[in-house]
Amino acid sequence: MNHANLDQLPSHAALQACSAKPFDLTAPGALGARRIKDYICSMAGFDLLYGTQRVDETVLDHLQKLADEAGAVKQFLAMKKGAVMNRIEGFESENRQVLHTATRDLFAAAPLAPEASAQAARELAKLERFLDELAGGAIVNSRGESFTAMVQVGIGGSDLGPRALYHALAAFRMSGRRVAFISNVDPDDAAGVLAELDLSRTLVNVVSKSGTTLETLTNEELVRQAYEAAGLDPRAHFVAVTGEGSPMDNPEQYLRSFYMYDYIGGRYSATSMVGGVMLGFALGYDGFVEILRGAHEADVAAEQRDIRKNIPLLMALIGIWNHNFLNSETLAVLPYSQGLVRFAAHLQQCDMESNGKSINRRGERLAYQTGPIIWGEPGTNGQHAFYQLIHQGTTVIPVEFIGFRRSQYDRDLAVKESTSQEKLLANLLAQSLALATGQQHDNPNRRFPGNRPNSVLMGERLTPRSMGALLALYENKIAMQGFLWNINSFDQEGVQLGKKLATRLLGHFTGYRTDAAYSGAQEDESGWAMLQAAGLPAD
Amino acid sequence: MNHANLDQLPSHAALQACSAKPFDLTAPGALGARRIKDYICSMAGFDLLYGTQRVDETVLDHLQKLADEAGAVKQFLAMKKGAVMNRIEGFESENRQVLHTATRDLFAAAPLAPEASAQAARELAKLERFLDELAGGAIVNSRGESFTAMVQVGIGGSDLGPRALYHALAAFRMSGRRVAFISNVDPDDAAGVLAELDLSRTLVNVVSKSGTTLETLTNEELVRQAYEAAGLDPRAHFVAVTGEGSPMDNPEQYLRSFYMYDYIGGRYSATSMVGGVMLGFALGYDGFVEILRGAHEADVAAEQRDIRKNIPLLMALIGIWNHNFLNSETLAVLPYSQGLVRFAAHLQQCDMESNGKSINRRGERLAYQTGPIIWGEPGTNGQHAFYQLIHQGTTVIPVEFIGFRRSQYDRDLAVKESTSQEKLLANLLAQSLALATGQQHDNPNRRFPGNRPNSVLMGERLTPRSMGALLALYENKIAMQGFLWNINSFDQEGVQLGKKLATRLLGHFTGYRTDAAYSGAQEDESGWAMLQAAGLPAD
Repeated sequence: MNHANLDQLPSHAALQACSAKPFDLTAPGALGARRIKDYICSMAGFDLLYGTQRVDETVLDHLQKLADEAGAVKQFLAMKKGAVMNRIEGFESENRQVLHTATRDLFAAAPLAPEASAQAARELAKLERFLDELAGGAIVNSRGESFTAMVQVGIGGSDLGPRALYHALAAFRMSGRRVAFISNVDPDDAAGVLAELDLSRTLVNVVSKSGTTLETLTNEELVRQAYEAAGLDPRAHFVAVTGEGSPMDNPEQYLRSFYMYDYIGGRYSATSMVGGVMLGFALGYDGFVEILRGAHEADVAAEQRDIRKNIPLLMALIGIWNHNFLNSETLAVLPYSQGLVRFAAHLQQCDMESNGKSINRRGERLAYQTGPIIWGEPGTNGQHAFYQLIHQGTTVIPVEFIGFRRSQYDRDLAVKESTSQEKLLANLLAQSLALATGQQHDNPNRRFPGNRPNSVLMGERLTPRSMGALLALYENKIAMQGFLWNINSFDQEGVQLGKKLATRLLGHFTGYRTDAAYSGAQEDESGWAMLQAAGLPAD
Repeated sequence: MNHANLDQLPSHAALQACSAKPFDLTAPGALGARRIKDYICSMAGFDLLYGTQRVDETVLDHLQKLADEAGAVKQFLAMKKGAVMNRIEGFESENRQVLHTATRDLFAAAPLAPEASAQAARELAKLERFLDELAGGAIVNSRGESFTAMVQVGIGGSDLGPRALYHALAAFRMSGRRVAFISNVDPDDAAGVLAELDLSRTLVNVVSKSGTTLETLTNEELVRQAYEAAGLDPRAHFVAVTGEGSPMDNPEQYLRSFYMYDYIGGRYSATSMVGGVMLGFALGYDGFVEILRGAHEADVAAEQRDIRKNIPLLMALIGIWNHNFLNSETLAVLPYSQGLVRFAAHLQQCDMESNGKSINRRGERLAYQTGPIIWGEPGTNGQHAFYQLIHQGTTVIPVEFIGFRRSQYDRDLAVKESTSQEKLLANLLAQSLALATGQQHDNPNRRFPGNRPNSVLMGERLTPRSMGALLALYENKIAMQGFLWNINSFDQEGVQLGKKLATRLLGHFTGYRTDAAYSGAQEDESGWAMLQAAGLPAD
């Protein structure tokens, strides 16, 4: 396909014209009951309230045209069917399919990418067997005891997405099972986590697609050493999630290996075995399958062409309206749900690594902004922190709120005539309104400019199923934005330069260790100087 | 004092002129050994490497003048001596002193604000006695057992700073003591934390300056109920940190009360009893005093007029250079230390709530950008996530890296010829270089534009003392920036509107509960419509 840049699409100019006078949310009566109720988009168990965005019917119509001109939904379908979307035309690139959706398309009568879904189904069946053996006592420790904990060792996509889902669903854990995570190459990460665990009853799940991720191998080695020091056989405790045939695909080292495939990018891998093994351990097999079902529902619903009925597409387009036409650089994702404490960190990776690009899919430099900076913390905590700047700062920060009508644990009580859940939801909706409408006041310090665009994504309750749908909504939003910006959202060349320089600097540490008179200055003046400036190598 | 706005200071125009051609870090030889070693600022146990910022001697000289013209250090000293800095001239405002520094100035022979330091010393002595009684067995549970856990119930400043410090220093905990936190009004927060604790051996530390923070009172009530349900007497478990005479200053409800004072803002309160009680419990009294000593050293060193010898002042000025002259909206704080996992979240509050303002200290609207958006996660994790955008995205994100030469736990091993600590530091410095210098390449996807400004703050090891210094460095940087922007960094009027609207919305929940035919539409059309659009009140 010969994809056009965003600014070459016919509707771009019309939207540019509209952006001179975006909808004014602060005008008297602008945010009335009619608008609030009309601007709701519902699918896959979620409602997106977007009356508090600076859009009107004209802008929405142009955004619909923009989506059609870019063929956003067509590209999404092509992706799901196995098109080689991860490429830069005319240049060396990863040249891969993008098939994370196949890991949950296995519920369909006719999966769109049958081969990939068959592979996913095979791994799922292996997982079910493994979990049955754990539950049934066929897999136990050397003393015949069951396993009560799992440590996931991984980094980036092998850590953030799975970790976000685990925290989101901890309320649904099988009794007596918990999970910890080690990701950072900082040795204090592993040391801190290991100090809290009974290794004899802990499984270790090492996750690396290539089987060569340096941080992960290093942490695996630290953990193996701790097992050996405790007189335990790592082979009875370690499982691997990796590519078939990778150095980690080795039955002599691992109790069991689960496979991931190169058509699934790390940041989109939470619904593959990368998330599956750990989530299956924590929630049980059925819990993980519920996540997949929710994600699948959201994937199917995202095929809808009408932006008013397609949440990820609408979120993608409103994001582009805010970023490319109203010139915001950032996006705050603020969940009013403690379970989602790490969800913004996952999105930060998924979105910024996908869409933090400067060239299009033909390698040409773009003249417009692509992926925004994503950040966020759970409300109501944030209200007592950074909301000050969102309300009264000099920078406009678009916000995506997320909330649920019911709590997870259902342990609540009324204090001062309202329950905690009511307080939580009242705060969520109040923030949305306050940001939109602002406030006039005689005291300039009590003025709120308003017109701070935001939307509210409401679900019924944060469960495995709704979490799966929420994850997929955001994955699909990110992919749709990439299609509209005409970028490759599926590679990550930007992480390579740092890796290369780190290897060079590591060489200096090694050189210095073998020769105290070592000076790396000849080959690498700046690298050696940086080390010395930092007081390194330190003895 | 009649403070001038940033853009009225004489050096502003000179800097504006310089900003047309900022130092080019990508030019051949630009980042040589000389520059790297010359651009180091050292104080209070830290070195700031800033050769990778887009500054040269001319810019630094103008920044020095700017600081002098604004009287940044003079204002800082006035603050420490008790000037009423928290005010907006001519308008109703908090009208308070700003004396968090007094909580650590008590080591000085002659404290700058003697009365406040005397109050801090009194609370510290109370804390020492309390901790002695806990350690000596004078305070025990109803079964005569010692307390092994503490739950801190607080929100905003009563949560983020203390929590960040606890995670940073968990490696130094007294054996058999741990701390958990409840902050979010989401009932799932308390439910999740309480499920993991043995309440009978847990102290509860409730923190609210006013004694009326709704989220905190609600969570306190949830926790009290859990104690009562477990047949435990809350009075034997609950302690309070609050203002003297507040509703929470009540010996019938609490085992002990510790005081905080209205001249300490929540976000600057980690070194008051707000952090002290919990950190003293976790680390022991001496551990908390070490934090205070480190902070005090950094407070004293920040009085230095020479920007090349004053880290917080230099960081403040370079931040202004990046934000106001080179037009960046955000700042990423990326610690290469797992202990600092929540430090960016604390800074996000401390900085954005302080400097997210649009009016000056006379209530006049400002024509320039004030506080940036602060965000960050620990490296190396981030390298496998959002660094893609930092390296190759369309938006320039200034970065402040933080690192330490030695690890905390000292449990490390060599994998592939280098230790984890070496890998961590090599990655940190490599990222700094890569962002600065960039890379040319034939493949456009492997090009890195460079000139992405960053600095590296290096310490020896993350200990209570260095953590205290690091905290104070950042607090002082934030205050200095506020002085330069001519804003009141110490109030937070921007949180009020949301609170007001939340109260209105809560009224609808209550109204509906007592009358199913309730319609709040008359008095509050948009609020009631938002609730209904969100599917609320739900039965």
